[in-house]
Amino acid sequence: MKPDLEFLHRLADVAARETLPRFRATSDVINKETAGFDPVTEADRAAEAAIRALIAEGFPDHGILGEEHGAEGLDREYVWVIDPIDGTRAYISGVPLWGTLIGLYHNGRAVMGLMDQPFTRERYVSDGARCLYRGPEGERQLSARKGLTLAEATLFTTSPFLFSNTHIDRFRAVENKVNLSRYGCDCYAYALVAAGHADIVVESGLKPYDIAGLIPVLEGAGAIVTDWNGARPEQGGDIVAAGCERLHAEALELLAG
Amino acid sequence: MKPDLEFLHRLADVAARETLPRFRATSDVINKETAGFDPVTEADRAAEAAIRALIAEGFPDHGILGEEHGAEGLDREYVWVIDPIDGTRAYISGVPLWGTLIGLYHNGRAVMGLMDQPFTRERYVSDGARCLYRGPEGERQLSARKGLTLAEATLFTTSPFLFSNTHIDRFRAVENKVNLSRYGCDCYAYALVAAGHADIVVESGLKPYDIAGLIPVLEGAGAIVTDWNGARPEQGGDIVAAGCERLHAEALELLAG
Repeated sequence: MKPDLEFLHRLADVAARETLPRFRATSDVINKETAGFDPVTEADRAAEAAIRALIAEGFPDHGILGEEHGAEGLDREYVWVIDPIDGTRAYISGVPLWGTLIGLYHNGRAVMGLMDQPFTRERYVSDGARCLYRGPEGERQLSARKGLTLAEATLFTTSPFLFSNTHIDRFRAVENKVNLSRYGCDCYAYALVAAGHADIVVESGLKPYDIAGLIPVLEGAGAIVTDWNGARPEQGGDIVAAGCERLHAEALELLAG
Repeated sequence: MKPDLEFLHRLADVAARETLPRFRATSDVINKETAGFDPVTEADRAAEAAIRALIAEGFPDHGILGEEHGAEGLDREYVWVIDPIDGTRAYISGVPLWGTLIGLYHNGRAVMGLMDQPFTRERYVSDGARCLYRGPEGERQLSARKGLTLAEATLFTTSPFLFSNTHIDRFRAVENKVNLSRYGCDCYAYALVAAGHADIVVESGLKPYDIAGLIPVLEGAGAIVTDWNGARPEQGGDIVAAGCERLHAEALELLAG
């Protein structure tokens, strides 16, 4: 028995019930790391717990990898990969560009996924067959923008200061070619590529749960998402997502090691 | 006869009727500059025209300074200062952090103002007496966060690459002291300070219309907004906004020339 679109929506709904009421209300930031700043809020933990409970009830034989509550059954046929709040920094500073990311891997390949932003009431979801946007403007099929070159493209990255010394040069090589470069969006940037509003996202050092939920959404919208060498993105790392093959190929030429 | 809160809401409403339907639908970006990239959309121009028409009808003896359609009667007692879409780059890349900014100056001093974000349905408005937030969470009095030091503060700036060589060092001096630094928000960051979700915004090279609408909102919420030397912010330039006096003073020590 496989999950369906309705189950994906239920997962997003239970997460939103934990994240949204605490957005802009919470001050209970916990510092996970002693060096650096990696805030985890109660919202993160409660949302992941709610998602895991629903999965355990509906699909007890599935494995789960979550950012907050760890891994179980990673060797199973189906494994859920969860980031309850991607963009915690946005969340704790009141910016509504964070998202709940939930992906389902089948034998290591992302087959279903979603990104949900409850404050703006935007949900991007793919069950492998349908790839849909639901938001204030209504519901529609997601479709990435096609036929652009880098010189015409809008690029996103969360921060130019998240790249290592060797990686920043490659990122800059892409950034120097695009029409418009924007910072600060985390998962929301990938959703904009799937929706055809932006064209390319380049990031470095992602965890599997930073990208898992977005892979089926991007691919269902006709976008391409891989690592910087063109390999599958399920394990995270250095990631590039582009609205079409031509743009992806152009970026890969500058990013590949 | 002075405008009232209801008139401010009407201005925001007519602007939203031009900006929101074109958001994520427009591809008619016009390149204002031959060097660089300063996009102006039809939405910008139509929104400012709608705002100006309503002002001309209600307050024909007021002056107007707008980003798109120029200046008239700047020597009058009351002058409206308008940015129909602050954050045009956000607007054209699908990010709902742009805003309509409308300020009213009385003898050169900002006395009423608003920031409106129609996609997230958030409006920040001050008539000089009341300073209100209206959004998905309801309506409430705006109030900045108090009592924090820089070491505890959340800082925003649109981009670290918008500072000149002499200014970047001073910005970095502030950035190096804060708890959390975020990029990419334009006017939305100032609204977050007024709402008590963020603490400080530092920017450089602003035009009057980039800050006019925000001044009464910030001041009505108890926040402080000045230039980097502590002077009034009505003419734009290098701007710092902080949630409280202590934080503002701490920042000014690092920013003042």
